[in-house]
Amino acid sequence: MDITALLTSAGINIAICVVLLSLYSVLRKQPSNGCVYFTQRLVSEPVKYSDPFCLERLVPSASWIMRVWQATDEDILAVGGVDAVVFMRIVVFSIRVFIIAAMICIFLVLPVNYYGQDMQHKQINAESLEVFTIGNVKEGSKWLWTHCLALYIISCSACVLLYFEYKSITKMRLAHITGSPPSPSHFTVLVRGIPWSPDHSYSDSVEKFFSTYYPASYVSHQMVYQAGTIDKLMKDAEKMYRMLKTIEPQCGKSSMPCCLCGGTTHSFKVLNNEAESVKSKTSVDGLQPTQREKERPAAFVFFRTRYAAVIAAQVLQSSNPMLWVTQLAPEPHDVYWSNLSIPYKQVWLRKIATLLGAIVFMLVFLVPVTFVQGLTQLDQLSHTFPFLKGILKQKYMNHLVTGYLPSVILILFLYAVPPTMMLFSAMEGNVSRSERKRSACIKILYFTIWNVFFVNVLSGSVISQLSVFSSVRDIPIQLAKAVPAQATFFTTYVLSSGWASLSCEILHVYVSKYESGGQFWPIVHNTTIFSLVLTQIIALGVFGIKRSPIASGFTIPLIFFTVLFNEYCRQRFSPVFKRSPAQVLIEMDRQDERWGTIEEIYNQLRSAYCQYPSISPDLSTAGNTSHHEDKESSQDPESLTPGNQLVKLNE
Amino acid sequence: MDITALLTSAGINIAICVVLLSLYSVLRKQPSNGCVYFTQRLVSEPVKYSDPFCLERLVPSASWIMRVWQATDEDILAVGGVDAVVFMRIVVFSIRVFIIAAMICIFLVLPVNYYGQDMQHKQINAESLEVFTIGNVKEGSKWLWTHCLALYIISCSACVLLYFEYKSITKMRLAHITGSPPSPSHFTVLVRGIPWSPDHSYSDSVEKFFSTYYPASYVSHQMVYQAGTIDKLMKDAEKMYRMLKTIEPQCGKSSMPCCLCGGTTHSFKVLNNEAESVKSKTSVDGLQPTQREKERPAAFVFFRTRYAAVIAAQVLQSSNPMLWVTQLAPEPHDVYWSNLSIPYKQVWLRKIATLLGAIVFMLVFLVPVTFVQGLTQLDQLSHTFPFLKGILKQKYMNHLVTGYLPSVILILFLYAVPPTMMLFSAMEGNVSRSERKRSACIKILYFTIWNVFFVNVLSGSVISQLSVFSSVRDIPIQLAKAVPAQATFFTTYVLSSGWASLSCEILHVYVSKYESGGQFWPIVHNTTIFSLVLTQIIALGVFGIKRSPIASGFTIPLIFFTVLFNEYCRQRFSPVFKRSPAQVLIEMDRQDERWGTIEEIYNQLRSAYCQYPSISPDLSTAGNTSHHEDKESSQDPESLTPGNQLVKLNE
Repeated sequence: MDITALLTSAGINIAICVVLLSLYSVLRKQPSNGCVYFTQRLVSEPVKYSDPFCLERLVPSASWIMRVWQATDEDILAVGGVDAVVFMRIVVFSIRVFIIAAMICIFLVLPVNYYGQDMQHKQINAESLEVFTIGNVKEGSKWLWTHCLALYIISCSACVLLYFEYKSITKMRLAHITGSPPSPSHFTVLVRGIPWSPDHSYSDSVEKFFSTYYPASYVSHQMVYQAGTIDKLMKDAEKMYRMLKTIEPQCGKSSMPCCLCGGTTHSFKVLNNEAESVKSKTSVDGLQPTQREKERPAAFVFFRTRYAAVIAAQVLQSSNPMLWVTQLAPEPHDVYWSNLSIPYKQVWLRKIATLLGAIVFMLVFLVPVTFVQGLTQLDQLSHTFPFLKGILKQKYMNHLVTGYLPSVILILFLYAVPPTMMLFSAMEGNVSRSERKRSACIKILYFTIWNVFFVNVLSGSVISQLSVFSSVRDIPIQLAKAVPAQATFFTTYVLSSGWASLSCEILHVYVSKYESGGQFWPIVHNTTIFSLVLTQIIALGVFGIKRSPIASGFTIPLIFFTVLFNEYCRQRFSPVFKRSPAQVLIEMDRQDERWGTIEEIYNQLRSAYCQYPSISPDLSTAGNTSHHEDKESSQDPESLTPGNQLVKLNE
Repeated sequence: MDITALLTSAGINIAICVVLLSLYSVLRKQPSNGCVYFTQRLVSEPVKYSDPFCLERLVPSASWIMRVWQATDEDILAVGGVDAVVFMRIVVFSIRVFIIAAMICIFLVLPVNYYGQDMQHKQINAESLEVFTIGNVKEGSKWLWTHCLALYIISCSACVLLYFEYKSITKMRLAHITGSPPSPSHFTVLVRGIPWSPDHSYSDSVEKFFSTYYPASYVSHQMVYQAGTIDKLMKDAEKMYRMLKTIEPQCGKSSMPCCLCGGTTHSFKVLNNEAESVKSKTSVDGLQPTQREKERPAAFVFFRTRYAAVIAAQVLQSSNPMLWVTQLAPEPHDVYWSNLSIPYKQVWLRKIATLLGAIVFMLVFLVPVTFVQGLTQLDQLSHTFPFLKGILKQKYMNHLVTGYLPSVILILFLYAVPPTMMLFSAMEGNVSRSERKRSACIKILYFTIWNVFFVNVLSGSVISQLSVFSSVRDIPIQLAKAVPAQATFFTTYVLSSGWASLSCEILHVYVSKYESGGQFWPIVHNTTIFSLVLTQIIALGVFGIKRSPIASGFTIPLIFFTVLFNEYCRQRFSPVFKRSPAQVLIEMDRQDERWGTIEEIYNQLRSAYCQYPSISPDLSTAGNTSHHEDKESSQDPESLTPGNQLVKLNE
């Protein structure tokens, strides 16, 4: 591939990017879209564009970019929470590292590569891309120290930036913990693996255990019930009500009692069309006697203070580690109820099974990747499919196929990955939706690193032979041979996926459902360190191939110090992202006590974790409140506060 | 090597073993050795053999073996504690697995190997050992299923035995925790990384922090002081006293005041020979004013209950994870004082440095191992050292050199390993002696696995080329090729090291210094599982070489299920070995409260962790009480109880 092909690819991407940004700029001005783009702001201030036929509405403008550019961390923090800030910090960090790397590579490395060999240079736009890579530098060249220097500068600046980011994000996280208003999840512990006893119900066991061992801090608890049964009852009730609603006008508002015998499994024998009585039947008559049988060995236990909850969550409770397993409860709207009824003994087995499944999926995914790889080697392709020869002879098509198509196909295939990983993570038995998504995200991350990078790089030699590395010591050299050879693919991949898909992300509006307090930063940090070390190992291999012992020698301590830096950050910062410090929690508890907000919290606690809050008093909205179990509900978390919940089964 | 060589080796070993056992049997009967062999029993019952010239004393007898054989777990538990029982369980477990494996191999595998190829068998005593290994089985032989079956039976029986051992040891450990008398270490937390403040001393900071955040459970604390200064003073005092003791008889018991100016760094200006005044000088005059300056940022903090101590040890205290780092304190006599003054910030760096050091040491150790390897290949050896040819031509010498010498040399070299690893572990910054030893033991374990097994097996192909595995997939095949080839070496290794060194262990008497409550069992468990999986992987490779797809196919699920079993044990049992269950601790605390033993414990607490208890009231024993810092003291832990301590610096 030569520079023209690269420029074609870049051109297409820039065009798409500009079109998408303009479209966004126009769309965001339409009042009808206001509720999409400014949901959070709408509550506080009214929409500006009131004139329906203003020309301004149809002209793309760039002023919003300026406004976004000027937004400080504090602004974002106020609007989007810590997670939004952390996300922005990631973007800013990436841009900074990219700028540093670009500057160094353009002014230091590129000239060295270009004049690396005594050769007649063509006109620059007809030059092959290979001339600009390190592959063009002579073996044993003394100029390789520039590459080593560039590696040092990039690694050091990345580490310094990472350090300050980690420091400020840790600070932000602590401020977030301290400043966050009391939430039921702070005071609640999820208990699983409650031992079965023939004499007591699970509820009695929980009551007994916690009032014995935590007499000072235990408040009350809330059992988890078998999903399915009650759930179906509720669904039926809802369906029924909607049916009756449509029948009602025909009946002329006569108070006709409807008989609906049989049909659904959990159907009602006789019903009148008063929603109120449906509810009372469901909650009082139908459930109370069988309630004990439907209890699952899991419960939410409420404590008097945050500190007591954290301690109960961290300590090993019983001498059998599979019983009385505690962890801090997820937020009420974040609970993944159907997974709560999974016996705790199964969870570890499920995790292993899921891991195996994910690995198998990764291996199966090699098929499309190999196909994509084939596209970049055009000669092979036209050899395999002779009918393509005619098309591929056209110069423009050639550019398109080699420069653009491979990565587009890869991206399309990659769209299949997230749903699969979500499925795996649901099977894994995570107790909260955010945890499930987090687990899926990590899986996708590993998947991407494995598939896009390693497999693409090594596919030529690897997949056919299944011998990944011919020796442990040869890894850097193997990578060093393979990576520069695939440099053109990655250049196009970054150009097409980077620009087009990033600007696609703009037509999306993300509603932040969970506030993790920047808990995903350590993942970003680790991935960055991993990339750095990988780069350094590849460089080591390249220096080895180019026979530059000095450059290789200088790279080894760099790898060592990068790993050491990572270890330092792991020691210094990461515990705060895993556990809340006692000092902070105790101070918060004392503040609550001083301000007298504690009573309010207790009242909230008793109703926060309700498994079946979906029927609201006004049943005409029943169609809007989606089912709470199986899919992500779109409803506001606020609707789960006690004010809106009238159907509480266990009070 | 043929069977005769093996028998030579075995003969030597059995002879050594019998001699050693007889020697033990005689020695243990000598009354003068009674204090060595029956220290613990001596206290309770008097020595039997009172007649000094009884013939019985000089005749070896086997009755003690019978008595040892009849001892139950309960007997050992009563005499030696949980650790002794667990150790015996390990021995019993190993014997059981060995018997099962031996039975199966002799009656099932060995005949198959022996008749594996159509060949003329020689007289059995002239047969080469190779005839009995799997190397003798034809490729694609249908009889390989016997090997697969043997593997299944051995793996399954090992797993079943492991499960029951783990279960009973867990039970034993819990009983040990519940039944152990209150010890100061249960109520004490070691705090490191106390932040420095210009206004307060470290002691004030600790006081403030714990009385603020643990007002209900905090009792008091005990600072750690800079080692060295006070330490040297004490040493000097001791030396001086001993000097004076020797001078005294010459002086004719006159109360002459001795002037000793200069000489040692921390010498005393004027001293009389009353030990009491030395002590008062050291403790009151010399130290009090500078005490604050000598404080280190570490302290022992005492709590009211066991549960409170465990919680304070487990919870993340501060928002800076490098400050206020807590852990449960080691037993008073187990504290490694000089490591306590290491700033906590250094500890992680030290750990990494030690790890690197240990790895380098392992690689350096390849040199003697390669030499030993050379001895088994006799042809190469006589080629290298021509002068040996004459000696090696003698048949007996040949047997000795190939059969016995290699492993003896290896064992001699291995004797250098433990001191080195102890040194590494001391540098690591462990706060207790047992932890230091444990860390050294783990290092030695890895070292042995790496050096004795892998390097010996792979040295031929590996060390020269430094390419460990030619591909990840080839590992089993590589191992499978190498292991049977080295089978003769391992047979001799097991014969010589196993019998001779095990029976050597008997002339040793181990005084158990630390009672870990069987905490080393998980290491044994993991190592066993590792060995099992390694065996299975090697078998997989062997089946691959022998072209038996059915046997290979059956081995893969076996590996999977072994790993799964390990994971189950890790989930079900291992948390109890890491943390004490809250339920048990709270029950114990309540029992203490009911029985009123709590006050006694508090009194004990205040004096238990004393950094300088070495000068006892009767200074004439000063020569026996060895220095407490640098070497393992032989003194009884009981001497550290408050009754014996008169010099308490911080009360």
